[in-house]
Amino acid sequence: MDSRVAPTNVSDLAIAPLDSAAQLRLRALIDGKSKPPGSLGRLEDLALQLGLIWHPQMPRTERATVFVFAGDHGLVAEGVSAYPSGVTRAMVATYLDGRAAVNAFARAAGVEVSVVDAGVDAELPPHPALIDAKIRRGSRNAAIEPALTPDEVNHALASGAAIVAASIDEGTNIVAIGEMGIGNTAAASLLMHRLAPAALADCVGAGAGLDAAGIARKLAVLTRAAARSDATAPLDVLAQFGGCEIAMMAGAILGAASRRRPVIVDGFIATAAALVAVRLHPAARDYCVFAHRSDERGHGLLLEALGARPYLDLGMRLGEGTGAVLAVPLLRAAAGIFAMADLAEVLGNSSRQGDA
Amino acid sequence: MDSRVAPTNVSDLAIAPLDSAAQLRLRALIDGKSKPPGSLGRLEDLALQLGLIWHPQMPRTERATVFVFAGDHGLVAEGVSAYPSGVTRAMVATYLDGRAAVNAFARAAGVEVSVVDAGVDAELPPHPALIDAKIRRGSRNAAIEPALTPDEVNHALASGAAIVAASIDEGTNIVAIGEMGIGNTAAASLLMHRLAPAALADCVGAGAGLDAAGIARKLAVLTRAAARSDATAPLDVLAQFGGCEIAMMAGAILGAASRRRPVIVDGFIATAAALVAVRLHPAARDYCVFAHRSDERGHGLLLEALGARPYLDLGMRLGEGTGAVLAVPLLRAAAGIFAMADLAEVLGNSSRQGDA
Repeated sequence: MDSRVAPTNVSDLAIAPLDSAAQLRLRALIDGKSKPPGSLGRLEDLALQLGLIWHPQMPRTERATVFVFAGDHGLVAEGVSAYPSGVTRAMVATYLDGRAAVNAFARAAGVEVSVVDAGVDAELPPHPALIDAKIRRGSRNAAIEPALTPDEVNHALASGAAIVAASIDEGTNIVAIGEMGIGNTAAASLLMHRLAPAALADCVGAGAGLDAAGIARKLAVLTRAAARSDATAPLDVLAQFGGCEIAMMAGAILGAASRRRPVIVDGFIATAAALVAVRLHPAARDYCVFAHRSDERGHGLLLEALGARPYLDLGMRLGEGTGAVLAVPLLRAAAGIFAMADLAEVLGNSSRQGDA
Repeated sequence: MDSRVAPTNVSDLAIAPLDSAAQLRLRALIDGKSKPPGSLGRLEDLALQLGLIWHPQMPRTERATVFVFAGDHGLVAEGVSAYPSGVTRAMVATYLDGRAAVNAFARAAGVEVSVVDAGVDAELPPHPALIDAKIRRGSRNAAIEPALTPDEVNHALASGAAIVAASIDEGTNIVAIGEMGIGNTAAASLLMHRLAPAALADCVGAGAGLDAAGIARKLAVLTRAAARSDATAPLDVLAQFGGCEIAMMAGAILGAASRRRPVIVDGFIATAAALVAVRLHPAARDYCVFAHRSDERGHGLLLEALGARPYLDLGMRLGEGTGAVLAVPLLRAAAGIFAMADLAEVLGNSSRQGDA
């Protein structure tokens, strides 16, 4: 699939907020199932969200796909990461080989893996599981110039939306997003700083494994980058600081929402992409399922900016969509609530047979 | 399957603690996978536990079965539950019909459901998915007499162990336990009180939905029951207060541990059964995976008594093994870590191709 010939402008996407009129009815349906009301806790809220997304159909959850968007970052030249850029390409090869954490988790959960070259700084050989949507070989160094042009930003957003929409049209019920990109916590910190908004120091963490001195250096680099521009509009912020894969993830979220499908968002970078998407289309928030609270510093505050409370808290901080994939079984279980017997029927059986 | 003709005495079971000599080697194996060390958080600890349980083989996780043990409680006559005893039988029929929460969750997660009649106060018609292991039609009213005889306790423990061991011998890789029994939070509170040990007031909660007055009445009834006996030895405590299904769950845990398989434990009642099992065979603790932190008051303290920290916290309080089933995909994902590529190999690829 070549998605370079797809895009409409994502600003034109129609994204409808969930139908609040159906909420009471669906909540009553869930409350009436064979269990004490509320006893399935947060899975009942998740069932409600899925029910509203699919309304008036019943939610379907069989086919889930995780899209791993990969891209490199010019900022890495400034020493913001514990690993060199070449690791991005090597990890992409590992995904395509089926031997990374996201593959292991996806196999365990019955989730398909699609790898998207959003902007890896290497020419990647074709592969059946690789979607070539490369915007450019890595973003520019945001410490000294805008990372992307406005055209590149629009292109990335539109490609992300088109890739996900095409997959949904082919039968995907659940979209999960993940990423790989050495240096992308740095870019995500800048996006969060401007769009949450939050003080830059509260947005910067260890990423893939910086020590305290490394984090201080990263903050100094990002302070320089931030000083270059006072952008606060989402598209401008993406152009100044954003990576190709982050812009494409934001587009992916908008693509899922425009097709009325849930999109699972996990860690720090994916949540930064969700913040971009929601700032562009506030109704997209209704379609996001926040999977996992990352150990990356700043994720808590970022989640707060989106009013999000993840379902899982397992101390992970890997990315790749690993947290999103772990949440797929929760969505499937939540959707299963609609298939349960009603409590009235069960209690009727219990008293009719005279054992109460 | 009729498990009434099975049992050895569970005190004779051989349960070996995990091989701590293998721990460093397995931890190094996990640390060396293609991810920043520790970046899969608690799933790495889970992988280590599974690795040690299966050592020297690699862990297998394909076939998981949840055993739902059902039993009634004479204590219900004292008004300790929001629902009448007849609901136990009606819910068993719902499990067999595949229409309860545990069925929905099990279908979603690829888990088999086995229903065990440990002590339902009704004659249940035969059903292919029902294991008849009935000890008696409900425990006696522990407020006025011992709930079970010592023979009934031994029989229940041995049956639980035999049922699970037979399933493992037929290919089950992961055992999950759940329960249904109107009144069984009351029995579990008494077990916890004596075996944690903890003040009775800290062990009593709302169960399936008591209000504050109901909880006060439940505490008064349990105070009377506790005053009848000063038992503190696990078998004596089970005889005084325990339900058939709780004793059988304790046996199930011991059966899984004796066969070196992980056993997933979720809510308040299942954890009380785990406490009994661990007090009988301390090494059984190594085989328990604690799935979900229940909303039932007292569960936190009970988990502390076992040094347990569940993986999920979704506000559920239903029982049936629903929390245990939700954890099965986590075990499968954790076991998948062993199949990942090594980081050294990935970094070698990244530098050999000269992109770093």
